[in-house]
Amino acid sequence: MDEPLHQRIAADLRRRIAGNDLPIGAALPSESQLCEQWGASRAPVRQALAALRAEGLIGGGQGKPPVVRSTAVSQPFETFLSFSRWARELGRTPGQRTLEIARRAASPETAGALSLPEGDPVVELLRLRLLDGVPVMVERTTFVWPVGRLLFDHDCDSGSIFAFLTAQGVDLARARHVIDAVGADPVDADLLDIPPGTALLRERRHTTSAAGEPIEYSDDRYRPDVVSFTIENSQQARPALLRTRGQVS
Amino acid sequence: MDEPLHQRIAADLRRRIAGNDLPIGAALPSESQLCEQWGASRAPVRQALAALRAEGLIGGGQGKPPVVRSTAVSQPFETFLSFSRWARELGRTPGQRTLEIARRAASPETAGALSLPEGDPVVELLRLRLLDGVPVMVERTTFVWPVGRLLFDHDCDSGSIFAFLTAQGVDLARARHVIDAVGADPVDADLLDIPPGTALLRERRHTTSAAGEPIEYSDDRYRPDVVSFTIENSQQARPALLRTRGQVS
Repeated sequence: MDEPLHQRIAADLRRRIAGNDLPIGAALPSESQLCEQWGASRAPVRQALAALRAEGLIGGGQGKPPVVRSTAVSQPFETFLSFSRWARELGRTPGQRTLEIARRAASPETAGALSLPEGDPVVELLRLRLLDGVPVMVERTTFVWPVGRLLFDHDCDSGSIFAFLTAQGVDLARARHVIDAVGADPVDADLLDIPPGTALLRERRHTTSAAGEPIEYSDDRYRPDVVSFTIENSQQARPALLRTRGQVS
Repeated sequence: MDEPLHQRIAADLRRRIAGNDLPIGAALPSESQLCEQWGASRAPVRQALAALRAEGLIGGGQGKPPVVRSTAVSQPFETFLSFSRWARELGRTPGQRTLEIARRAASPETAGALSLPEGDPVVELLRLRLLDGVPVMVERTTFVWPVGRLLFDHDCDSGSIFAFLTAQGVDLARARHVIDAVGADPVDADLLDIPPGTALLRERRHTTSAAGEPIEYSDDRYRPDVVSFTIENSQQARPALLRTRGQVS
């Protein structure tokens, strides 16, 4: 809440646009309405609107009321990668329960995913991730040894591994996410408290340094009623990516 | 096959990069190797490499062998939207079997998705989509009436509705795709010839005109062993989106 007022106004409007409360084509509240709603003067309201205009979220202006042009800008790389950061930006409480952290010899599959010789040491982590205390995702991550070994000195229940590794100087710079669906296996079913075979949203992620050196490979399985991925694209604009709250139909 | 040689060489390299046959960090074949492989002179090979360099897929050069920098550029909007076009660009044969096309009054859910008053007429289409003759996706699309009515004069089994509507002047310009997972319902199970409850990859899509007017809402359910979505993002570059061949682990 130390954020300047114009940032808070902009953040609130972004949330309303992303949540489809203000869909494409909708007129934004007028400047006077926003001033009244926030007990603000014109300056911070105009600054907030300018920020959204710069992001391509709204058009209009020059006397015309601003209108929603696009409902999404991509989440920053860190937000898309880090479950903890994503949850906090939603105003939710992230949690985790580490079930296992192990040094193992790379299996053929892991060796392929991390471009390592089979049998090289890797660090495998199995964590259950929670949102406001509710189990929502099973995370199976394999790290290359020079990075994974750092985790033996870290309390993986204390929060974001992404933040910890970044602070240690690990260059998590690019990621490739393959998204599909998979039936819950017995471990998933037990941890997420759902029947085996329940459809889960799966994200398989390869994360590398800027130079392309493999750092981690993860198989993350989400309860699809809680988490979805949203992509917005168009003929012109650059695509937007978001990890989103699930929308059960 | 009327494509100029340099385009064919570039397309082949793009495919090998996107398919992870040439992963990030991998060196490309040398110019001489490419010349030999394609029975080509240096000029088209260099032109192909220049194209990939311009797209940010490869780096290196100035004497150093080119290296893969990024494995993906976004598919064009049309390719991401149109199943037929996507299949053809993969070198596969798209197919479809129209099970139902109906004029109906908009249900509360449809009315919400298309921003229409409940009870307004809409056109609902149920199609099974095939890849090389194999059923891979169940498509349930609802069109606003002024667009959907065009389909009663069209053979929906003849191919791409996207291409047909575009040729009719319909402005399909933006799309929002919400991706999650869902268990096969009895209709899905029957059409895809899988057990009920099997995990399917679901894409729910809102497509609008450039101005944001709703045109269609679709619920597409894919066999995840055949189709997945791939997202590539990084600290710097714009994200890339691809509909991809499924990768069963």
